[in-house]
Formats: sequence, C-alpha cells, structure tokens
Amino acid sequence: MFYIIGLGLCDEKDITIRGLEAVKGSSRVYLEAYTSILMVQKEQLEAFYGKELILADRDMVETESDEILRGAAKEDVSLLVVGDPFGATTHTDMLLRARALEIPCRVIHNASIMNAVGASGLQLYNFGQTVSLVFFTETWKPDSFYDRIKENADLGMHTLVLLDIKVKEQSEENLARGRKIYEPPRYMSIPQAVSQLIEIEEDRQSGVLSPESTLAIALSRVGGGPGNERIVAGTLAELSVQSPEMFGEPLHSLVIVGKRVHPLEIEYAEEFAVDRNIWRNVAIGVYGCKFD
Amino acid sequence: MFYIIGLGLCDEKDITIRGLEAVKGSSRVYLEAYTSILMVQKEQLEAFYGKELILADRDMVETESDEILRGAAKEDVSLLVVGDPFGATTHTDMLLRARALEIPCRVIHNASIMNAVGASGLQLYNFGQTVSLVFFTETWKPDSFYDRIKENADLGMHTLVLLDIKVKEQSEENLARGRKIYEPPRYMSIPQAVSQLIEIEEDRQSGVLSPESTLAIALSRVGGGPGNERIVAGTLAELSVQSPEMFGEPLHSLVIVGKRVHPLEIEYAEEFAVDRNIWRNVAIGVYGCKFD
Repeated sequence: MFYIIGLGLCDEKDITIRGLEAVKGSSRVYLEAYTSILMVQKEQLEAFYGKELILADRDMVETESDEILRGAAKEDVSLLVVGDPFGATTHTDMLLRARALEIPCRVIHNASIMNAVGASGLQLYNFGQTVSLVFFTETWKPDSFYDRIKENADLGMHTLVLLDIKVKEQSEENLARGRKIYEPPRYMSIPQAVSQLIEIEEDRQSGVLSPESTLAIALSRVGGGPGNERIVAGTLAELSVQSPEMFGEPLHSLVIVGKRVHPLEIEYAEEFAVDRNIWRNVAIGVYGCKFD
Repeated sequence: MFYIIGLGLCDEKDITIRGLEAVKGSSRVYLEAYTSILMVQKEQLEAFYGKELILADRDMVETESDEILRGAAKEDVSLLVVGDPFGATTHTDMLLRARALEIPCRVIHNASIMNAVGASGLQLYNFGQTVSLVFFTETWKPDSFYDRIKENADLGMHTLVLLDIKVKEQSEENLARGRKIYEPPRYMSIPQAVSQLIEIEEDRQSGVLSPESTLAIALSRVGGGPGNERIVAGTLAELSVQSPEMFGEPLHSLVIVGKRVHPLEIEYAEEFAVDRNIWRNVAIGVYGCKFD
C-alpha cells in the first residue's frame, strides 16, 4: 500500500492515530519538504514516530516518483505531507502514477489551512475561491489574484490569500553556473502582502480593496494553540503598519472579509482586532452589519 | 482548559495524537452528536480512548453550554466534534461563551469535508462557496442554494453541496404532544439530491444545471479508505439513475463541476466515472477541456 499522509498544521502530534500506524508499519517513509513548512524539525518527527524519514524535495517528488513508489505493491510505503494531501497538485500526480502502476493507495486526511481558516471566526461556507500571492520583483508583478478577489468581493464572499514561500531557491548566478547552492528560505510577511495588494489596487483602481475600509484577518501558525497561534484583525491600513514581529514566525495567511459577513463573524473576530472600535465601526458603516 | 477537538471524518483512529492526549487528560469528555455523524458508535470511541463519553445533543450544546464549560478554568474539559470544530456555528458560540467566562480554550483541528473534498481530484482553490441542500417537502422547497450554485457557475467555480441529515427529529404529532420520541435518522441520497437540483432548475430555467451536460462528483464516506470510501463521477442524469446502493451508507456529498475545470482534474476523476466516454466527451464538448 502507498500511503499519502497529512501531517496537519503544526508539529509531530498533529498526525492522526491512523496516520501514525501507517508510518510505523511502513518500510520507507518519505517526508515532503517543499509544498509548505512544518513548525518542527525532521529530527523531532523522527524521534516521535520512531522512524527514519527520507527527505523528499521538489526534484524528488516530481521526477523520482517511481523510486518513491518502489515496492509499494508488496510492502507499505508512506509519503508525509504538511496539511492535507490534496493541498497540492503534485500529490494528485503521484496518485495518478501509483494508479498507473496498479499500486493500491490510501490517503489519510488531516487539517489544512483550507478548513482551519475557520479559526478566524469567519464561516467556511462564506468563502469564495482561494488565491495565492507571490513575491513581486521589480519586473514581475503577477496580479491575476486581483481578479479572483474581485470575483469573490462582487459576491460578498471572503477570500483566503495564501502567502508565498520561497524554499530551496537558487540565485540567478548559482542557477546559471549549475551550483546547487540554495538561498535561505523566505516567507512573505503580512505587511508585505498587504502592500502588494494595495499596489495592485492602485494600478487597477477597481475599488475592490481600500486601505481604510476593507477588513482583513491575518492568521499565523494556525492550530499552534495559545501563545503560538496568532490572529490579528483590522483594516488593511492597520495591518500594513504593524511590525512583522506582531505576527511572529511563519506561516502566515490573510483573509479579505467579504460584504456578506454576518455580525456573529465580526463579533467573534473582534477579540483579535488591532482596534476594536475601528473594527466594529467599519463593519457597521462599510459592511452594513447590524448589532443588537 | 476547554478543548474542542475535531474527530476527523470516519472513526476512532482519525483523532490526532494531540487530540487523544487532551481526551485522556480531561475530567469530562463530551461527544457532540448532531452536527454530523460518525461512521462509528460511541462505545467504540470510548473503548479506544479509554474514557467515558457524555453524549451532547443539540439541546445540550445550545442551551447548556455553561454545564459543559463547568470547571474548565481549573481542569480540562473536552468537546469532541465530527470533522473540524469550525464546521458549525454552534462551536463559535461555545467559544464566545468560554471567552466571556474567561476560560482558556484550545481548538484541535482535523480534516473535514471542506478540505477532504479534494479526494474527488478537483482542486480546492477552484471551489466557490459551499451550499447546503435540505430535504424538500410538498409545501417547503427552499431554493436559495440555486442562486449560490449559479454565482459559482458563472465564475466557473466548483460547488460543494452538503446533503441534509435529519437526526433526532420529532414527528408533528409527537412534537405537538410534547413527547420526546424521535424519528429514525434520515440522510439525503445522491439521486434524491440530484432530483431536487433538477427540480429547481426546471422551475428557474436559468440554465445553470443540465441533466446531460453538467458534470458532478458524488463522494461517500470520504477518508474511509479502499472498500469503504466511494467516489462516483458522471453527468447529473447518470447520477440520478444510479440505485442508492451504488453510493452505500452515508454520509454523502456532491460536487457540481465548474467550467474552469482543468484537464488534470477531469483525468483524475475519470477513474470514478460511471461511463468514461461520456465523462470525457462532456468535458471536451461542454467544458472545453483539451487533452493531449
């Protein structure tokens, strides 16, 4: 059996009992190291699971899937991924490959930001499509995310914005010289994400986003529990002027609040507001929320 | 500490290690029994967790939250819920109440249909808002879901349709006489859901849904693994004529495929097609998919 096992959001204890049993019974266990990041080191996972983990980076998962799948028709092989296995298209590719090789597969689900974003207090059924925001460079500012946010906003839906991660990137020089030397990982911060959103709004002028009157909720290390997880709510302007330390270590995500927001959602998130008065006043004045 | 712990999708082994530790350390453990259903009995959970579980039905969670929260400032109390804790507004209410009582809380996330629907092969970021479909009666056919599906369809997004569950319902007679006698649970089947969708399409005539040219994917017992989980893909017409046995036991969900579908999504789901040729031909002819 080939298992793809979701590790959930934070650390070694977020695996399910079913997932842990599959790990313990596997001949080889791969740990996928690129689609996202864990809040914990490989060694800590190995100690807790009692298993050696083989690090599977982007190259390996995309180009050596047959090596990962080797023998899985006769023995158990596991691939561990952060969040839920269906968070990345690469895993669909792996499952298609396993199917072609007639290897039985089982997916062991877990939480991912796609459902844990409910921790913001916003209701999952009020979310539209999810968008990704990549690091802008001087010459490359892909802005199709803006159209997606607009589509959601026009319907009053919330938008989950996933912030870019750069892991195992090579500098142009190292790439050109074929040197496998990698840059330190980079994670987009909340203020940077907001500044990119505002930059595109200023270009497009469609009125989808407004620094003073668009509400948003920043989520950091969701599922990390008290003292680790952090949720910050405010206008885009408020979030943009916070120091990056306000949000702490990665990973960060951002939700743009849609106009169909329910007063109960506002009330729940008010606990996380930079300024409760501004939060509630914008909800009333701009979003049309009515409170008792 | 008050814990709300997601149990995941299927049975006692879908809890996380972190969740199981919280259960074992709690003075009282409540099992919420109404927002959804587990594929397993309370006794099986109790045996595996080594803890007695207190069944908390709808009345109790909504009206006796202070009893559930009693003592949680000094000792640990857990509430177990199917899927992820933020799948239902009731849990947000509980957390607001705990906050008002200054009881520290921790949410332990897990998989829910909102992210596990990725098992269909459809990409999560291509989903619009989620809708619920309730049992129609002769005189009551709430159809606002149709507007939501239309909004998603106009953008080319997929729609996850959650099918109604009736648990612990009283007949009109028993309700009138104040007798707490409950009807057997009812779960909407896939053919019934499709027939309700088509009925409203025939009323509205907006061309959002078409028996022959709208593709959909039915998911049953997601996460249940080989031999239990079942995924069936086809046109609405094809799904409507399957026998309910085709989909097996509850729970069932349905996805309406949006026009922005990627050929890789179609290819992945083709494995589940009632008729592979029809599936692919509709994808090409109606959805404009191009295959190599």
